[in-house]
Amino acid sequence: MNCIQKEFTISAKSRGFHSITGEVISNLPNISNIESGIAQIFIKHTSASLTINEDADSTVLLDFESHFNTMVPEDQPYYRHTYEGSDDMPAHLKASLLGSSVQIPVTGGKLNLGTWQGIYLCEHRNHAGDRKLVVTIWGS
Amino acid sequence: MNCIQKEFTISAKSRGFHSITGEVISNLPNISNIESGIAQIFIKHTSASLTINEDADSTVLLDFESHFNTMVPEDQPYYRHTYEGSDDMPAHLKASLLGSSVQIPVTGGKLNLGTWQGIYLCEHRNHAGDRKLVVTIWGS
Amino acid sequence: MNCIQKEFTISAKSRGFHSITGEVISNLPNISNIESGIAQIFIKHTSASLTINEDADSTVLLDFESHFNTMVPEDQPYYRHTYEGSDDMPAHLKASLLGSSVQIPVTGGKLNLGTWQGIYLCEHRNHAGDRKLVVTIWGS
Repeated sequence: MNCIQKEFTISAKSRGFHSITGEVISNLPNISNIESGIAQIFIKHTSASLTINEDADSTVLLDFESHFNTMVPEDQPYYRHTYEGSDDMPAHLKASLLGSSVQIPVTGGKLNLGTWQGIYLCEHRNHAGDRKLVVTIWGS
Repeated sequence: MNCIQKEFTISAKSRGFHSITGEVISNLPNISNIESGIAQIFIKHTSASLTINEDADSTVLLDFESHFNTMVPEDQPYYRHTYEGSDDMPAHLKASLLGSSVQIPVTGGKLNLGTWQGIYLCEHRNHAGDRKLVVTIWGS
Repeated sequence: MNCIQKEFTISAKSRGFHSITGEVISNLPNISNIESGIAQIFIKHTSASLTINEDADSTVLLDFESHFNTMVPEDQPYYRHTYEGSDDMPAHLKASLLGSSVQIPVTGGKLNLGTWQGIYLCEHRNHAGDRKLVVTIWGS
């Protein structure tokens, strides 16, 4: 078995959900050497997150943004962490609901995703900067 | 260290939450050789998910279905991805809230779950087909 | 590559969200030997969970508790699993929304977290006991 790792940056995105499957695949280090293993993608931020979902119809991305805004509304009276703006505390909550990493099987040198699956970058801030990701691949 | 992987199918389930702990364990390849490691179970779909929770009282499974239907309701006016039916977009949202994979420590050749923990297949569609899972185990 | 594992206990915490980053780091076995890899922290319980979020301002921890209590309320008419108290079924739901494990890249012998990231123990019961965690680290 071996383990390879690479850190890279995704340029700033607008608030919402974005498919980054192609961008992640182009940054996977030497995945073709792995017959059976796992690729992890990790985001080093607390107001953006990663998830796996439907990668064919872009209205799914829009509905994710609408629903998360309803389920985690801004300006709730019980928020105390408010000094970074109305979008900040909801961003932290959404980030934990979705998670900081995805772990995907690698089979025959490729990500073994289902037919419809892709990787989303979930940007929860109104005016975010670039986002740092770490890819780690291990297997035999 | 070594890494072993197996893809298998879970036969179609009704909408709701189902304990699949026994079925997963019977599909774990050569786990008895792993003294310390991890088993990952990954689901290759975007409208079903996996989670770990209470595996003793089946009313917990029913309450999961009730609560997720309340927290992620069907037929919201803001949904745009509607052409696959009322259960489709909520299924995608529930899938990302719960996640596409679980990662469980392997210790002494067995899944090192807590006393009450089991693995749920969360089926979010009304009329789903079989579901494809990938198990990957690594360790020493 | 090698893989090391350790089980340890976190003493009972009050209901709410608690930063345990320091306590986890002090329990990481031999992480300094890992140049590139992953550390997994797993909680062996179904009414407490782990997540990664903002580790600088403690009001974020309070807002997590407030929001999860709103999003997953107690005493809903549809709950059937009620005999362990009003906090029990919400605890199971919160545990699955947040997850039983976190997986963090290890780089140069250290957890490769972002500047603001830390590890939360999310205690969802009113009167919890100690919580058992398993740390597994693998890499080269």
